[in-house]
Amino acid sequence: MNPERIQFQKYEDKVISAHQAAAFFKDKMVVGSSGFTKAGDSKAVLPAFALRAEHEDIGITLITGASLGHTTDADLARTNALYKRMPFQVDPVMRGKINNGEILFIDQHLSETAELLENKHLAQLDFAIIEATYIDTNGHIIPTTSVGNSATFAHLANKIIIEINTSIPFEFKGIHDIFIPTHYPNRDVINITASDDRIGSDVIRIDPDKVVGIVFTEIPDSPAQTTAPDAKTTAIANHLLAFFEKEIQSGRLTKSLMPLQAGIGKVANAVLSGLAKGDFENLVMYSEVLQDSTFELMDTGKMTFASASSITVSESCYQHLLNNFDQYKDKIVLRPQNISNSAEVIRRLGIIGINTAIEFDIYGNVNSTHISGTKMMNGIGGSGDFARNAYLSIFVTQSASKDGNAISHVLPMVSHTDHTEHDVDILVTEQGLADLRGLAPRERAKVIIENCAHPEYREQLQDYYNRASERGGHTPHILEEAFNFHTRYLETGTMKQNCLATYEG
Amino acid sequence: MNPERIQFQKYEDKVISAHQAAAFFKDKMVVGSSGFTKAGDSKAVLPAFALRAEHEDIGITLITGASLGHTTDADLARTNALYKRMPFQVDPVMRGKINNGEILFIDQHLSETAELLENKHLAQLDFAIIEATYIDTNGHIIPTTSVGNSATFAHLANKIIIEINTSIPFEFKGIHDIFIPTHYPNRDVINITASDDRIGSDVIRIDPDKVVGIVFTEIPDSPAQTTAPDAKTTAIANHLLAFFEKEIQSGRLTKSLMPLQAGIGKVANAVLSGLAKGDFENLVMYSEVLQDSTFELMDTGKMTFASASSITVSESCYQHLLNNFDQYKDKIVLRPQNISNSAEVIRRLGIIGINTAIEFDIYGNVNSTHISGTKMMNGIGGSGDFARNAYLSIFVTQSASKDGNAISHVLPMVSHTDHTEHDVDILVTEQGLADLRGLAPRERAKVIIENCAHPEYREQLQDYYNRASERGGHTPHILEEAFNFHTRYLETGTMKQNCLATYEG
Repeated sequence: MNPERIQFQKYEDKVISAHQAAAFFKDKMVVGSSGFTKAGDSKAVLPAFALRAEHEDIGITLITGASLGHTTDADLARTNALYKRMPFQVDPVMRGKINNGEILFIDQHLSETAELLENKHLAQLDFAIIEATYIDTNGHIIPTTSVGNSATFAHLANKIIIEINTSIPFEFKGIHDIFIPTHYPNRDVINITASDDRIGSDVIRIDPDKVVGIVFTEIPDSPAQTTAPDAKTTAIANHLLAFFEKEIQSGRLTKSLMPLQAGIGKVANAVLSGLAKGDFENLVMYSEVLQDSTFELMDTGKMTFASASSITVSESCYQHLLNNFDQYKDKIVLRPQNISNSAEVIRRLGIIGINTAIEFDIYGNVNSTHISGTKMMNGIGGSGDFARNAYLSIFVTQSASKDGNAISHVLPMVSHTDHTEHDVDILVTEQGLADLRGLAPRERAKVIIENCAHPEYREQLQDYYNRASERGGHTPHILEEAFNFHTRYLETGTMKQNCLATYEG
Repeated sequence: MNPERIQFQKYEDKVISAHQAAAFFKDKMVVGSSGFTKAGDSKAVLPAFALRAEHEDIGITLITGASLGHTTDADLARTNALYKRMPFQVDPVMRGKINNGEILFIDQHLSETAELLENKHLAQLDFAIIEATYIDTNGHIIPTTSVGNSATFAHLANKIIIEINTSIPFEFKGIHDIFIPTHYPNRDVINITASDDRIGSDVIRIDPDKVVGIVFTEIPDSPAQTTAPDAKTTAIANHLLAFFEKEIQSGRLTKSLMPLQAGIGKVANAVLSGLAKGDFENLVMYSEVLQDSTFELMDTGKMTFASASSITVSESCYQHLLNNFDQYKDKIVLRPQNISNSAEVIRRLGIIGINTAIEFDIYGNVNSTHISGTKMMNGIGGSGDFARNAYLSIFVTQSASKDGNAISHVLPMVSHTDHTEHDVDILVTEQGLADLRGLAPRERAKVIIENCAHPEYREQLQDYYNRASERGGHTPHILEEAFNFHTRYLETGTMKQNCLATYEG
């Protein structure tokens, strides 16, 4: 018992080991666990369950906020501890099991999981596992570095296991804003009209009778991998920054832009870092994840506030934050992911959403999830939540990759569609930026090929488009050739066509 | 001058002919016109402009609410009066011009056009044409059978032309609820928490100085084509009604279901008619269009209220309504289409959305717009607005069509994606219903093939799935064969495979 971390007497006898907690689960149970982009995840109970599954024929359905940290998803996958997994993951071992059909993965909009659970469109949760900074005198939970779906899990699960993480300072109390829209048919408005609005409680309220175990850990979050900007990411960032400047000159945007959302990754980080150098002021974020660049922008005074569902930063940034938390505490808020990614709030605030594509096509459709149309990479995450409702929906990727630019990321037709052309405003590669606003498909093809495609692929793409448009159609295609880039790569190791002349002749 | 229909003195000298009004437009101007699913459209000025364009080399960009009635879109297309058209159309002549590239069409979510105009992501509107029942003593407009984007057009356009339609009775005053969210960065909440909530004004407020002409017409709306339910649409409706009964038994729904949205068409009409016979009560709609079945449900006492953006009914229903408007007046409201189709309100109210698919695939992706991936049919309309945010997102279509069932509407891969599998809960054909909630792609394939595919195509689809899944992947596909159904149809006139044995052998 640790009276500072457990301030609620009724829980006195609830402290157990991770091993004991993991023993609660029965085969085919449904477990919801905290954890969003590696932040605030279960560091004791889920790993203990993976160990248990190593020697026992048992599996669960695991629902999280988003990706887990450390090797938890890998361990669970390797020991066959999961039947089903949702709504997001980024682990190579798990990805392998998903792609060979051993783990059934449901790739969901991050805003939607809570909705589906509340509507009972997913199975009843048997257990919730929630990482906590501490438990207050009412038995309620002060979360840690993420909120994710924790409030919904705690609300709906039959039983709750709390993981108290003593590495998180008490000062975290107050940065969370927990709001769950009440039930149908009379649900509340999500009354956020600015990034820094608070509409809920700073604790996750729970029914103390549901708590069956409290486990202590002191393991910090997995650090985010940060990569220094390279020539390509810098070029992408610069195209986008030049576009913002132009929008400011046209009077459509001010120097404060609009609230920013950025997916995780080196391009998004490069863009945000670029903002620190440009002539911007009073920037705010309304995003899913607070990254290193968020805090850099605050340090330069350019960013005044940031709202998200988690803090996912590098090891050095994490230590700096924990040691200087008072500097940032009033400038951030962490919300449930159905609020951070709420369609309602995103459209109302007019978010500029910047997300990474795996590939996009000459008409502006975007694939965020599948390699060659079949293999799951990570999942759609929140990109759809933001892209559909954003003031500006921006997707970034490199124009080509692999040795000799064997893969073009600009294609005749995407091999899997996550974001339709209806929802995509701006595409950027290191080659340039395509502004698709107000353009019909045939106009889109021209600017995408000219501005975004790698020079080594422009002729091939143009040739496809020319021949397709001769056949007619609103969105000209030649179905028997639409995936030739992909199949050529699988067959020959490059998407490049050697004999274009035969088509042209 | 008609002092009952124009109650604002300042407009005394504004009455002009349609021919004079159409003469205002200059080449390349942008015109926004009322009209939503053939209701409340411009019946004088746009047809007059089509006539003008017959003898003059002139074109405009035309933005409407949705489709226009009569032969207006056809006439505009035939006389080359349009450079660009958005966000929706249903006319065969225009479709032909769109598909041969002569008219640039932008296919938009119906909720989004107003948003793009307010954000200045589309060009400035030179003119708005708004059909009115009458003009009140303040110079404001009482709309007619639709609201569509009229309020936004009137708000943003440089100049306004009003078409007063004397066939619409004065009793229409009061059924409209006009609300425009104010500008960034502090936009209002759309404070609708029930289908019958009113949050705005019952007139479209306009700046009288913008009004350059008032044109009188007495032409009624084009009637909706109604088709009596046939064996297929009845079967689809019955599968869906049985599903609703099961949801009620499970406790997830009550006999009032949730607010209903239904796309236009014979299947949606059959489903709504079916509700009149079932054990349902206190139904409400929160939809885009009020159809014959809406009023039938009101007549049986099953439906208590209906919200939409237009009234699009058959000739007999239209006459009945105009003659008995007091019976219905308190039970309906017409809203701007960015409110009827608002993501915010749709998710908050928990809509059951029923829309028609052109085709869907074995993983649950839906094509609503393109024939063979290239040719535009009508447009996405509001289906995406509802499907993404609905409590239940339902798509219906026949399993196969044409002589000898030459076309399967269930396919290995859709040739164009409008709704991704993330956004689709229930698929229904006359063969049966696939409940996709909580299913991973490999599970989805099984229930879609078994429940929805036409028996003559099941083996072919299963064969594709089996061979694809042997290759692995989260969403198993064989890219070089993914469109074989479509290309086979184009080559042989049927999607049926004659030599399945060679693949199986």
